Order: sequence, then C-alpha cells, then structure tokens
Amino acid sequence: MSLKQLLMIPGPTPVPDDVLRALSQPMINHRGPEYIALQNSVVAGLQTAFQTEFPVQIYPASGTGGLEAAVVNSLSPGEGVVACPVGAFGDRFAEIAETMGASVHRVATPWGEPVTCEALTAALAERPETRAVLLTHNETSTGVLNDIEALAAAARSVLPEVLILVDAISGMLAADLRPDAWGLDVVVAGSQKAWMLPPGLTFLGISPRAWEANAKARMPRFYFDFKRMAKSMATGQTPYTPAVSLIYGLEVALGRILGEGLPASFLRHERMARATRAAVEALGLRLFARSRHSPALTSVLPPEGLSARDIRSALRKDHGVVVAGGQGPIKDVIFRIGHLGYVSEADLLGTFSALERVLTAAGHPVEPGSGLSALERELAGGATL
Amino acid sequence: MSLKQLLMIPGPTPVPDDVLRALSQPMINHRGPEYIALQNSVVAGLQTAFQTEFPVQIYPASGTGGLEAAVVNSLSPGEGVVACPVGAFGDRFAEIAETMGASVHRVATPWGEPVTCEALTAALAERPETRAVLLTHNETSTGVLNDIEALAAAARSVLPEVLILVDAISGMLAADLRPDAWGLDVVVAGSQKAWMLPPGLTFLGISPRAWEANAKARMPRFYFDFKRMAKSMATGQTPYTPAVSLIYGLEVALGRILGEGLPASFLRHERMARATRAAVEALGLRLFARSRHSPALTSVLPPEGLSARDIRSALRKDHGVVVAGGQGPIKDVIFRIGHLGYVSEADLLGTFSALERVLTAAGHPVEPGSGLSALERELAGGATL
Repeated sequence: MSLKQLLMIPGPTPVPDDVLRALSQPMINHRGPEYIALQNSVVAGLQTAFQTEFPVQIYPASGTGGLEAAVVNSLSPGEGVVACPVGAFGDRFAEIAETMGASVHRVATPWGEPVTCEALTAALAERPETRAVLLTHNETSTGVLNDIEALAAAARSVLPEVLILVDAISGMLAADLRPDAWGLDVVVAGSQKAWMLPPGLTFLGISPRAWEANAKARMPRFYFDFKRMAKSMATGQTPYTPAVSLIYGLEVALGRILGEGLPASFLRHERMARATRAAVEALGLRLFARSRHSPALTSVLPPEGLSARDIRSALRKDHGVVVAGGQGPIKDVIFRIGHLGYVSEADLLGTFSALERVLTAAGHPVEPGSGLSALERELAGGATL
Repeated sequence: MSLKQLLMIPGPTPVPDDVLRALSQPMINHRGPEYIALQNSVVAGLQTAFQTEFPVQIYPASGTGGLEAAVVNSLSPGEGVVACPVGAFGDRFAEIAETMGASVHRVATPWGEPVTCEALTAALAERPETRAVLLTHNETSTGVLNDIEALAAAARSVLPEVLILVDAISGMLAADLRPDAWGLDVVVAGSQKAWMLPPGLTFLGISPRAWEANAKARMPRFYFDFKRMAKSMATGQTPYTPAVSLIYGLEVALGRILGEGLPASFLRHERMARATRAAVEALGLRLFARSRHSPALTSVLPPEGLSARDIRSALRKDHGVVVAGGQGPIKDVIFRIGHLGYVSEADLLGTFSALERVLTAAGHPVEPGSGLSALERELAGGATL
C-alpha cells in the first residue's frame, strides 16, 4: 500500500471531504435560476470573508490571474508603480505590472524580512507621480507577513490618493486583513489557500477608489475586465462560463469558514504557526524569516551539511509527508511547511515526527519527541481544527 | 421530489459520473512527481484529440480566456486583423482583438449563415497588410459550422503568411478539425463542451508559424503568455498553480474520448444533430441556421405566436428539460438544443417528448410521437452513446 499522504505545502492545501464531494455535483445551466441563486449566495459569503461591504468578483483563474486583473484594471501604460517585493511572489507582482506597461520602481528588501514603512515612504516621497503601490500580505516564498495596515497608512501619509493593490493570496483568512477599514483598493485572494478549495478561482475585492481609477485605466483588458464582470454579476451571472464545480465547492467551504468565524480562523493559524516555530527551534533548526513570521507557512533552513532537497525527498518517500522547497534563488536553500487551511494538530505532529526521524537518519541526531513536546506545549493553549 | 434534469444546452454539458468522481480526489503537490506525470499524460492525450503533433497548452480559464490568449500571443498593437463573425461568439473574438489593440475589419455575414470563402478572400485582397484572420469553427449562438478547411485555404491563397486563429471551443470533437493538416495557427478549445468536463480549462494548439509570430508579438501578456507556459510545461509543470481537480477530470475524460476515437465522435455528433433537425421539422418548427448546420447544437425558431422564452420555461418547469435561449439580438427569438458531449439518444427522446407536450399545451397542437418517430428513423442508422 502506498503511504497515506500528509500534504503540508502552502497550496494547494488539503480540501475537506464535504468540499471535495461538492465538486462532483452535476452541471447546471450557468444562465439559469439555480446558478444565479448559487452565485449570489457565494458572493455574499465572500464579502463577509473579505471584511468588505463591496461586491467581491470571482474569476476562473489562478491567483496570478488575479494579480494581473488588479494591475490592468487600475493603471494606464507608463504610470508609476512602487512595488515592495519581499520574495518570489512580490517579484512576480512587480513583473506583471512591468510586463503590462507600468513604470515600476522596486523597494529593495532582503528575503526573509518584511518591507518597512520607512523604505516605502522614502520611495514614495521621491516619486510623487506614483499611481499605485503593490504590497504582498503574506509572502509565500519566504514565510513573512507584511504589516499591511501600517504600510497602507504610511503610503497614504505621503500620497493620500495612491492606489494600494494587495496580493493577499496566501494570507487572507490566515491573518487579519481589512480592505475597507485599512483603505486597500484591490485585494486579491486565491481558492487553493486557506479557503480549503482546489486551485482555479481567484477572488478580488475592489474599493470605490479602485472603481474610479478603473474608469480612467487604459491598460487593455477583456477576460479580467472589472466592468464587464460587474455588469454581469449584477444579474447573478458572469460574462463567460464560470467554473461551476469550483463554485459548488466554494459554497460548502464558505459554510465552514463563516461557521468558524474570522477571529477564530486567525487565532487557529497563529497557534499552528507558533507551535511549528517552537518545534523547528527545538530540533536545532533555524527559521528563514527573521521577523513577522507567517501564520500560513514556516520556512526552515536545514542543519549545516544537509540539503533541503534530501530532507524533502526522505519525508515524502519514507513518511508520505509532502513539504515544499524554496523558490527562485533559495530553491534548495530552505524547505517550507504549510499549515494553512484544513490542517490539523495531528497533521503537524505527523510532520514533525517524520522530520525528527529523517534528521536522525541523515546524521543530524535529535532526541525522539523533542519537536513533538515543543509542539504540544504551544498547542495546549486553545482550540484548533 | 424535484424533476430529474436533462441538461440540453451547448455548455456546460453533462459530465459523466466517473469524470465527476475524479474531480473529488485529494489535492497533491503541483510541483511533485505525481502531478508532473499526470500533466504529461493529459498533454499527450490532448495532442491526439487536437490532431496535432505540437504540445497543447492548458490554462485555468474559460474559453474566452483562450481567445484572449490567441490574440495577445500573436499580434502587436495596431496590426490588421480580419474577423469573420457569424454570431455572438465571433463578435466576441473580434471585440477581444479590438480591445487588445488590433485594427479589426469585420467581414459581415448574416446570423444563421456561415462565412463564405468569397467574402473572406475579397476582404483580404483589399487588405494585404492583414496579419491574422479570426475564424469560428462552430458558432454556438446560431448553430452554424464554418468550413474551416476551405476558409483557411482561401485565406492562404491570398496571403500565404497570414495567421489563422480559430475559436474551436464548441466545435472540437463534435466536428473534424485538423490544425496541422489545414494550416491553422492557434486553435482554442474549452473544457465544458464536447470534452465532457466542467468549465474552467481552456486548451490551445499552437503551430510553428504561431510561435514565430509570438516572438515578435508585442501585445502585453503575462497570465496567458505562451512562452512562460511552454517553459514550465517542459518540466511537466505550469508557471502558476494549475486547476488540479479539473486536470484529474481531464485524464478520465480523455480516456473516454480517445477510447471512442475521433471519427466515431464526429459521426455520433452528426447523427444526433441530423436526428434533432428531422424532429424539429416533423413538429412544424423551423431551423434558425440556413445551411452548414452545427453537429453540436440546433437553433430552433418557435411557431408563430409562441415565445421562445415561454417554451424554455415550460420545458424546464414542467419536464425538467433545460435548453438554452438565444444570445444578443436573437435572445428571445430562438431556443437552442445542445447535443454535444455526453448526451444520449434517450436524452434527445426525452427532450422531444417534452417539447411535443409543451407545444400542444401552448396551443400549437402536434401529433404525439411525431417528433419521436422522426428522431428514431434518423437514429436507426448506427451507434450512439
């Protein structure tokens, strides 16, 4: 028998059985009354999950498509953008803006650290023509959570009318994010993260300021056009065929998410992350992130002399535990443990038990159960899944 | 109990049980060996289904996204395009090209008819600077099948190097289409049609000539960029998270498609369409398409004095039979019966039995079984599902 798999990567995340089963429902007419009722219901649920009073749009696409939508709906070619990459996904967001014709300045931040308000305000003060700031809520490639509330306020203190576009793909539901209260303009989420859904949907929250910008934004767009989508959504439909099965899943997942409640979801993710960090350190390993550790995933540096790739390979082959590698320049430098969405305490315990044995077998002996005790001590504080 | 539904629309089409169940499989790492093997296998299957020797790309998007991909990967802003719309989806293809910055000339064809080689060659002869021709294989809004082989040859007889971009979303697998043999450059398909899958994936076949054009094409693109996709596909991956559950479904659906074989699939669709037309005419109704009737769907004009909307509504409410309305200017002028993909003879018989009763109840009396007899006579010729 092949090993029962523990999927501990920062997306796609494990999908609950009831959501998986919901995907298998028969097709319906996407212009008929059942679909219209379904879409109106999930859009209302998304709005609650997004903590916004404005309609949230759903596109059949990966999160990267959502980032492109945020850019092309907000900007005209040649307009100034200040990007704040702190890892591979921040780099991608900046590259999208550049590719689509914006004039992009990057605020440099070493990987493993968050962007600082000082660096952002300095960049904006030198570039008063800046039209939009690109921020990453949770950087999936490094495991760092940016302080979006403070960064948005800092940006507005320099340029009150600047647009704030946020990649919240791996952060939303794992950490608090308040588009309306914090003045964020376009906020992008992705189904395969803490939403407990398969990949294939991206969700976008859009502020009134973003809608004003949209009316003037001249980057060409059709598939990802906010206006076409809004017009069709007003009748409970979409401008082209929606990904019906994923919408079925979304309805069930939203029941779980709103049933738990956002504060409980944030606390649960924070506890799992804290426990993971405690266990990593108890095993004598180092965290790659130096501050503002992500509640969604933890990036780990292997012990001196061991390769991240070998550790991942042994975890998978000998124990059925799947963790992620690094990305870009730190591809084989770190491994990343995802603990967002439908991940339980038992999943974390299984992961660390396997990791203890893999380290020992690879010549980095650890006391059996030392990571597990650290985990349990941190988990003792309250309720998780 | 609510009525058992017969979904007789031209997409989303009914999905077989084994494909529906395949969607519910647990998530896996989209950068790991299981996913890589899965993707390489479905790409090989797609290539056979596409009748092409070149890799077929898969994007998590609706077919409209595939049309945008075809345009932005082939053209630079300002380049000349001759579009040949014969209905709402041809109009959309032209609108996408225009929106993304092409200079588009439309060959006018009345809805219900195919585009003629004469009209196309005349337009091209007057516009030698034309870079691309946009064609629709099967026009879903009217139920007309264009003669792509003849049109492509006609276009090349005037402009040997012109790019030929084909919307084959609702036509592929229902009617023959040979990208390599007929010299088509970008061919777009969509999962929710004869592929027997839910919506959410678009497939693109790309010729060597399209790749040459791609190297020079300057329309901005990121999400739909052929080159990024090809680079990642070379390692069995995608540049961003793929829609894993739909890929699971695709593997099962391809087993069915290649098991049946393409010639059998074309014959089956043609027989279902011929039977549908015979039944429509036996009931004294008229076909909207005047020639080159679609093998995928049939557009029907209601009898004088009855509205298409009322017929659709009675079919749905009293019999559980869901047919589509018209689109754009013929929204309530016609209704459309889809018979593509996983549709059986019994499904067609159930549809026409309901239609006979709805017509009689609405004051257009028909002999009970007259449509059914016509159906059965046409179906007696060979094997269907």
